[in-house]
Amino acid sequence: MKGPYIGSAYYPEDWSEEELPRDIARMKNAGMNVARIGEFAWYKMEPEEGKFDFAWLHRIVDALREAEIAVVMGTPSACPPVWFVEKHPDALKMDANGQRSTHGGRRHCCSNHPAYRFYSLRIAEMLAREFGQDENVISWQIDNEIYSNMEIGCCCDLCVESFHHYLERKYGTVDALNRQWNLNLFSQAYASFDQVPAPGHAWHNPHLLLDWTLCHADDHIRFIHDQADVLRRYTDAPIGTDMMPFGGVDHRKMNEKLDVVQYNHYNTCENLWHFAFWSDYMRTLRDTPFWVTETSTCWNGSTSWTQGFKPEGFCRANSWLGVALGAEANLYWLWRTHWAGHELLHGSVLTPSGRPRHTFGEVQETAKGFAKAADFLNDTRVKSEVGIFYTSHNWNMFDTQPHWTAGCPWPELKNFSYLNAILNYFYQPILTAGLRPDVVDAYADLDKYRVLVSPLQLTIEENGLPERLEQWVRDGGTWIVGAMTDSRNAIGAHYTDRERGIVERLAGITQCYEIPDPDGLVKAVWADGTECDGKLWYEVFDCAADTEALVTYTAGHSDFVGRACVTSRKVGKGRIIVVGTFPGADTMARVLNIACAETGVVPYATEGLICVSPREGGGKSGLIAVEIGGKAGSVILDKSMRNILTGEEASGRVEVGPYEVCVWENL
Amino acid sequence: MKGPYIGSAYYPEDWSEEELPRDIARMKNAGMNVARIGEFAWYKMEPEEGKFDFAWLHRIVDALREAEIAVVMGTPSACPPVWFVEKHPDALKMDANGQRSTHGGRRHCCSNHPAYRFYSLRIAEMLAREFGQDENVISWQIDNEIYSNMEIGCCCDLCVESFHHYLERKYGTVDALNRQWNLNLFSQAYASFDQVPAPGHAWHNPHLLLDWTLCHADDHIRFIHDQADVLRRYTDAPIGTDMMPFGGVDHRKMNEKLDVVQYNHYNTCENLWHFAFWSDYMRTLRDTPFWVTETSTCWNGSTSWTQGFKPEGFCRANSWLGVALGAEANLYWLWRTHWAGHELLHGSVLTPSGRPRHTFGEVQETAKGFAKAADFLNDTRVKSEVGIFYTSHNWNMFDTQPHWTAGCPWPELKNFSYLNAILNYFYQPILTAGLRPDVVDAYADLDKYRVLVSPLQLTIEENGLPERLEQWVRDGGTWIVGAMTDSRNAIGAHYTDRERGIVERLAGITQCYEIPDPDGLVKAVWADGTECDGKLWYEVFDCAADTEALVTYTAGHSDFVGRACVTSRKVGKGRIIVVGTFPGADTMARVLNIACAETGVVPYATEGLICVSPREGGGKSGLIAVEIGGKAGSVILDKSMRNILTGEEASGRVEVGPYEVCVWENL
Amino acid sequence: MKGPYIGSAYYPEDWSEEELPRDIARMKNAGMNVARIGEFAWYKMEPEEGKFDFAWLHRIVDALREAEIAVVMGTPSACPPVWFVEKHPDALKMDANGQRSTHGGRRHCCSNHPAYRFYSLRIAEMLAREFGQDENVISWQIDNEIYSNMEIGCCCDLCVESFHHYLERKYGTVDALNRQWNLNLFSQAYASFDQVPAPGHAWHNPHLLLDWTLCHADDHIRFIHDQADVLRRYTDAPIGTDMMPFGGVDHRKMNEKLDVVQYNHYNTCENLWHFAFWSDYMRTLRDTPFWVTETSTCWNGSTSWTQGFKPEGFCRANSWLGVALGAEANLYWLWRTHWAGHELLHGSVLTPSGRPRHTFGEVQETAKGFAKAADFLNDTRVKSEVGIFYTSHNWNMFDTQPHWTAGCPWPELKNFSYLNAILNYFYQPILTAGLRPDVVDAYADLDKYRVLVSPLQLTIEENGLPERLEQWVRDGGTWIVGAMTDSRNAIGAHYTDRERGIVERLAGITQCYEIPDPDGLVKAVWADGTECDGKLWYEVFDCAADTEALVTYTAGHSDFVGRACVTSRKVGKGRIIVVGTFPGADTMARVLNIACAETGVVPYATEGLICVSPREGGGKSGLIAVEIGGKAGSVILDKSMRNILTGEEASGRVEVGPYEVCVWENL
Repeated sequence: MKGPYIGSAYYPEDWSEEELPRDIARMKNAGMNVARIGEFAWYKMEPEEGKFDFAWLHRIVDALREAEIAVVMGTPSACPPVWFVEKHPDALKMDANGQRSTHGGRRHCCSNHPAYRFYSLRIAEMLAREFGQDENVISWQIDNEIYSNMEIGCCCDLCVESFHHYLERKYGTVDALNRQWNLNLFSQAYASFDQVPAPGHAWHNPHLLLDWTLCHADDHIRFIHDQADVLRRYTDAPIGTDMMPFGGVDHRKMNEKLDVVQYNHYNTCENLWHFAFWSDYMRTLRDTPFWVTETSTCWNGSTSWTQGFKPEGFCRANSWLGVALGAEANLYWLWRTHWAGHELLHGSVLTPSGRPRHTFGEVQETAKGFAKAADFLNDTRVKSEVGIFYTSHNWNMFDTQPHWTAGCPWPELKNFSYLNAILNYFYQPILTAGLRPDVVDAYADLDKYRVLVSPLQLTIEENGLPERLEQWVRDGGTWIVGAMTDSRNAIGAHYTDRERGIVERLAGITQCYEIPDPDGLVKAVWADGTECDGKLWYEVFDCAADTEALVTYTAGHSDFVGRACVTSRKVGKGRIIVVGTFPGADTMARVLNIACAETGVVPYATEGLICVSPREGGGKSGLIAVEIGGKAGSVILDKSMRNILTGEEASGRVEVGPYEVCVWENL
Repeated sequence: MKGPYIGSAYYPEDWSEEELPRDIARMKNAGMNVARIGEFAWYKMEPEEGKFDFAWLHRIVDALREAEIAVVMGTPSACPPVWFVEKHPDALKMDANGQRSTHGGRRHCCSNHPAYRFYSLRIAEMLAREFGQDENVISWQIDNEIYSNMEIGCCCDLCVESFHHYLERKYGTVDALNRQWNLNLFSQAYASFDQVPAPGHAWHNPHLLLDWTLCHADDHIRFIHDQADVLRRYTDAPIGTDMMPFGGVDHRKMNEKLDVVQYNHYNTCENLWHFAFWSDYMRTLRDTPFWVTETSTCWNGSTSWTQGFKPEGFCRANSWLGVALGAEANLYWLWRTHWAGHELLHGSVLTPSGRPRHTFGEVQETAKGFAKAADFLNDTRVKSEVGIFYTSHNWNMFDTQPHWTAGCPWPELKNFSYLNAILNYFYQPILTAGLRPDVVDAYADLDKYRVLVSPLQLTIEENGLPERLEQWVRDGGTWIVGAMTDSRNAIGAHYTDRERGIVERLAGITQCYEIPDPDGLVKAVWADGTECDGKLWYEVFDCAADTEALVTYTAGHSDFVGRACVTSRKVGKGRIIVVGTFPGADTMARVLNIACAETGVVPYATEGLICVSPREGGGKSGLIAVEIGGKAGSVILDKSMRNILTGEEASGRVEVGPYEVCVWENL
Repeated sequence: MKGPYIGSAYYPEDWSEEELPRDIARMKNAGMNVARIGEFAWYKMEPEEGKFDFAWLHRIVDALREAEIAVVMGTPSACPPVWFVEKHPDALKMDANGQRSTHGGRRHCCSNHPAYRFYSLRIAEMLAREFGQDENVISWQIDNEIYSNMEIGCCCDLCVESFHHYLERKYGTVDALNRQWNLNLFSQAYASFDQVPAPGHAWHNPHLLLDWTLCHADDHIRFIHDQADVLRRYTDAPIGTDMMPFGGVDHRKMNEKLDVVQYNHYNTCENLWHFAFWSDYMRTLRDTPFWVTETSTCWNGSTSWTQGFKPEGFCRANSWLGVALGAEANLYWLWRTHWAGHELLHGSVLTPSGRPRHTFGEVQETAKGFAKAADFLNDTRVKSEVGIFYTSHNWNMFDTQPHWTAGCPWPELKNFSYLNAILNYFYQPILTAGLRPDVVDAYADLDKYRVLVSPLQLTIEENGLPERLEQWVRDGGTWIVGAMTDSRNAIGAHYTDRERGIVERLAGITQCYEIPDPDGLVKAVWADGTECDGKLWYEVFDCAADTEALVTYTAGHSDFVGRACVTSRKVGKGRIIVVGTFPGADTMARVLNIACAETGVVPYATEGLICVSPREGGGKSGLIAVEIGGKAGSVILDKSMRNILTGEEASGRVEVGPYEVCVWENL
């Protein structure tokens, strides 16, 4: 069985067995070829400790096989049954106040607890023994949406102990920790690692917060990886874990020992383009296509409606977007709204009584489109020459040193975050410029790219990036360095002998100081006299002789008037452009123009919010375009192409309707 | 002594005894004939365990008797003294984090604690022994404003144990609970009732939250009923408990074993009409008139001002409204602002130094009006032909499945609640249509009504309503079924073979699916082309042959364009109208017109916000009209009538001034 | 060495020793003559219990001496090291939920804990032994920014015990407490002091909250005073403690046993004038000049940016304002932004890499100005004839009875507080009237003033004020009595036989009642027909024959139309003006005019927001004017004067540029 896959999460354990054939018939009618099952069904699999029952699950897998619907099998570790909790009450998670979770909901147990780990591995192993060789189980999902940064995560003794070991591994001696964290400050220095507390109940320093978060993330990754090791003994099917678009847990590290990148998202009309960002990232994590394991047909409404319904076509565009950008599967959450229990308001394919929702036609249309375009999709891969940096390490660093918080008085800054800054000031201009970027982290092969953008990358001290980036620039790349980038070392401290790690030296600048400007008092202009539309934050540079000041300050304070805000310098065969502000759309467009001209990257000319995905491979090439703004736009095709979905040929300026999807193959 | 009564809450225990004669003289000057005392004075009655002192209280009751001011005597169980708390620290309430309340404030003890129950009953008994036969004590009030849903209520072991017994009584076996709550979901199934936790510290399922709330409510009702049993052994005076307009505790159930419905409210200019709603409900709970036991003369300002002063006349209209709608008493809280301790900013009749506030004249005017209209008020009862459903069970169900929450991004939905939805989308149009509705719950005698409205009544599975409603419709009633009504079973679960319990079958519709639409993207029109002013939420119907689509969708998504939003169908001798949206004022007016025309109900023609209360009884009839919007309005009288308050005769269109009260008797 | 001093907080313990000479050279370049050190360096001073090391600190003090930079030495008690916390975990602060603080941050220990007190005193003593006779240590600072009202402060057993002793000292018997707190109300009466709980977990009465706060404040003052006693045994240099502009801890009481008033502030462009208020208060606490121990050169940005950068000149005006108003020192926080640890974003003189920030030039200019004007500044003192009351006791009373809270629906009231009410309705009009007020508390010598203003002074029962104020008025003073002033006794209770303590009798008025009016429905007019711009709150007065109604009600409610809102009465040789509302700018200007005319006080004629500071002393006189609104304004000089900073002579109307500072000496 081959992709692209379309299907949904299915919870047959919640329904009477008579519903099974009916639901399968409805899945066939929808055009589905895959179902994801099992993820929360530990209790049905092991109703009492050590008493296993998989017969019911075999009946379901078999019935789906008969209907030619493949299965993604989930391990149920997110939901330990009550017998486990009763036997091991100390496995329940503990919050910062020492309160344990109660049974109910999900993820109520501590991923560091040995009994929880033991039973999780055992149920995974039993499940793998049963279904590891079942050829209808084409893939595995471990656990569900695991991440640690709910508040500050579990604070039980085991987690604190794990933290101490983490610190010892990282710093070696407590003196080294004291020194690197600068713990003379406030007389905080520790005499031993086991004195370092969990966060909470103090005004903790940001390095402690960062390391706590990183340690927690690693602990959860280990929890997943251990299950992967077990599954792999019984199956050759690709193994993954479905991840959310939250950066607390490093997606890269998580997938190091897995086979297939699984990703969940619930975007709305307003932020569908965020999903493009995440797809551009998921694609880079492995060589094989990623899977969209969850999205909604219509709305997210877990315990209350947080979204309205979406305009016609949204379901189609939303279903296609991941596939256009490198996925080979799109699964909806969920098949049929739960009839009782949790999440009774969630969007789905069917209503609780089994009736098709208004988006059912769009699901069918998507399924047909996937089938039509299957060969093109399977043979080709997305092609990108531009990279934009995003790293979990920087997410966590900014999250624990948030610079601006929801409590600040400026509306634009209330939702300021590492992610939103990347999206709004850097990624969106790249998108509207008609470029298809890869979102890259510190482990990317830089040589694939001609242009790299470092937006709010507080530290570049990951995986040798300082040396690698310098070499890449010298070899001909153009590096666009955003505000604050390279201003901190690997643990989030300032440099003491310079303001930026390698950027001042490479870019031929001296950063005099920085200027927070939420009130918009600073003015700066381009050489041609145009006002620069920077925002919020300014860095003031003095330039070396061979560094060009692209943008210069004209107002704010006499001390910086005349100094530089945006600079450019030739370095070896390459170029480094430093953007000392959060760029508005015009500034970022100008900088991208310079970089593309320099490196020969040619964007697609688009109007509106058209996501373009150039594809190449297997002797084929083409372009997938998805309208993601809900308004008609256009793209100019550089060659004559045929739309696989409609059969129509097109060239030159082609209109793309609201939420329209075009799969053009070069003729 | 006969009503209507006017008076206030009086706390003589807080003042030196010399103030007593002065305060009584001021009460006489105000025109008062009743005072409510005793409710918080446990310490004065029993300063040490088992050492009782009622002499001071006799002096007060006697002094009031001499002044011909009757007494409502409160049992003081809301405020156990410090000697009790010291002896039984485990009787203090416990929050979800295991924190006990401290002594201070009120309601700090757990209503399930045996010692607290024992001492509460004993002080009530001692008080009843003393005053049960005192003829100046014309009524009793048990405790004060008891309700359980402060956060999630007490979580002590006794409360959790009570919860387990409640579940066992309700579900019989834990398997039945697992099945009905659908606890395969998230592997939550319990092996025994005593594993079910109190809410908190988990993402709990809504059925657990609902049952927890219902159990807590029952426990508090039992606490009151036990005191009523004790009091009844010593007195024949009517017994009640003063209730707030919160639906967590079932007002109906609470009053089953009581004699007089007592109700407290603190409405403002903006929401005075809400008080009409609650009066329309209180009236239906017993055959005898209810009492307004608390309202403010001017403002609520317990520990900070949450209200400004009110325009002239508000005090009059506010004092009259309950009486117009069926009360026989209006008591202010409080007589004289406390001089020290709590609530030092609260509105009152007198300032702390005993001076009359600016509303004193309105109090006097009200007292005179009550006296003038006494015979008419005592002889007649409110007459209603329209019922609108409100049930505590639905309040609690919606409260534990709030659908939209304060965190949602749409301003109109931030305060969305069961009560506000009823008030804004259903009750207000009924009010402005010139109708006088009863607010009815599942225990009402349906045969009294020609039109019934079911607004957001998630479940109708209470007291045989499905069968009773069907029969009532077949016998000739017109049932207006609001959005979401009858969409859940008694514990809040979806039906699995239909979307609505009896409504689809009776109304001849198939509900395809629902559409949340907070952004207002959906359009629908009436048959005459007028746009339907529905809001927030749409249900999409396919109609049977004999069902009329009154409103049809025209925009939103092609899948529902052409399908029905509002439908009407003749059923037996009656009619059922399904309104598949939250109706705007125009839609609800149209639907009410249809229903009135069908059933022969004739509304009063009013302009402005005039609350009309037709009265009949004792060979008399007439109409009380109260202007409650603060602006002049009018009402058209169908006969010639005489205003008892002014002596003037009137007929035809009569203007009613801001906050004016007219008591018209038919000539 | 003489002032005025300019310098900064310096944390050499956080930097390698090689940075020391570099930083000192930079300080000299900045023009600095003082550095504040040591305050958080307990760990470096005593790395292990009882093992002291001051050699490093001597090297720093000595190096600074060589550079002629004087030292303010801080005792490090705010930051007990980890060895202390490990040995005495029960010294960690406990919140209302029983949670202890963890090591990290500052102020994590309970100021009532004997071991913490012992070790704090010991390190202070050891430090004093080392540096008490070092002539370069010109002053001492005890601890840092100590105040208790973070939430409700520490709730450990020791603090609760201290509270019980406090209550016993204050009330003598528990019966007296029960009576004064009116604890019959809600049956709260206690049988012994040790039953009175800490706040939290109940709806506590305001007197308990007030006394808890006052007790906590006293405990912290005692903690500081004990250190002062120790230091004084070793040094003659003046001792202080740096205080924040929060009123929970009484600044007056705190400084009773100290020598120099130290004050920290972080004002912005919007509220720089608040700093004038606090300077006007700090100046009155001792006869000697106060110190500004902390302010920012550019922005506060502790863990996130809460302020943007400031326009040019702000640093200058901000640095001068305190000195103009009576300070002899201005210190910046901090010298160089921390390179790691806490507060990595804070404004400073230098960036982490040691580069001068954009405000460095303004710092240099300020240093030069201080030097130029040194003789004039040192010889003269600020002269004031007007006093406005502010007392910590009233702050705490209003804080525990907030009247309006952030949850109220009226925007203007969301930030209503004792301080903001004084600033916005009373202090700002005084400022713009060209007056230089002293901010006085109950311990001020009233005879220094001709006009006194009592804004929102809930109680005047402090230090004999009722008698002293009456005498002062009879002797010729004009007392302007603001809304609510004198409406409560010393513990915050209403009077029971009058509405105001002495004001009704003195002013010849009867306060009928009060009217909260956040919606602005009340109207009142001056005798000349001008509308009165009162706000929020009205008091309704009947006037005695010899009392003049300056403002009379014209709309709101017929009961108060015609009664008085603002009254004036001659009392002895003086006058009392009662302002029964929160005055708008016009009302307050009119009232000030009347008072100045009556008493012969002559304001400076200013335009814009010019802070004028008349100075006299040592045979010199003159005027310092500081523009604090960021816009050009003017002042009319009554004589010919010479600007010491520029050498220019001026007279008549003189323009003062944005953030300009003029130091005019009379010729």
